[in-house]
Amino acid sequence: MIGRLNHVAIAVPDLEAAAATYRDVLGADVKPPQAEPDHGVTVVFIELPNTKIELLTPLGDASPIRAFLDKNPSGGIHHVCYEVDDIIAARDRLKATGARVLGSGEPKIGAHGKPVLFLHPKDFNGTLVELEQA
Amino acid sequence: MIGRLNHVAIAVPDLEAAAATYRDVLGADVKPPQAEPDHGVTVVFIELPNTKIELLTPLGDASPIRAFLDKNPSGGIHHVCYEVDDIIAARDRLKATGARVLGSGEPKIGAHGKPVLFLHPKDFNGTLVELEQA
Repeated sequence: MIGRLNHVAIAVPDLEAAAATYRDVLGADVKPPQAEPDHGVTVVFIELPNTKIELLTPLGDASPIRAFLDKNPSGGIHHVCYEVDDIIAARDRLKATGARVLGSGEPKIGAHGKPVLFLHPKDFNGTLVELEQA
Repeated sequence: MIGRLNHVAIAVPDLEAAAATYRDVLGADVKPPQAEPDHGVTVVFIELPNTKIELLTPLGDASPIRAFLDKNPSGGIHHVCYEVDDIIAARDRLKATGARVLGSGEPKIGAHGKPVLFLHPKDFNGTLVELEQA
């Protein structure tokens, strides 16, 4: 069911510093910051030859990554995102196995403008999993 | 400097259960377990179209992932691995910027039979980074 790894998301307390590390220390292709107010984050995409890293920092008071950064003040790997062909079929298959879909269970439009869902980390080895319709 | 994302490593307390989740729930291409006694882990590779997930569980008493699982008993994302063309040149460039290379600073042969180094998470936004010579 799952296809490509769309991205790995890393939550960071200081987006500018983290972007500079990836650009200047690791020598990666780092894009400019993008505010995503609907998702409560500002994002920097790092384009690797086969996938992306997304650096995330909170935007606004209700950011979904605030609690993670409170627990991990230096930052850390927040989630992985796998592509699926049909997000409704994927959701229904997952629910049939007992896996928990976060929120209302209805896909939202994610930071790439495509439908996404998040799955409960307790059902996936402590890993927050995002599914994105490719 | 960094190239492809070679893999994302996820530490898990129960390798068989985690492999079954990726195979049966997420429908991924899951390979058989491989014991890596030199690295203190047993590994299951999950082949995605563009990269790999490595599920890791401790092997032996001195496993390098034991402390992580003590802190994260359900498991969690342990590290990301980026490919580099020349690991010695990469190491020297990193050290010149002040980034800390773990261990002796000399590359070891990793689970794929290629030279690897690990970088200090405190220098990379709380993320343990492995470099592998491609």
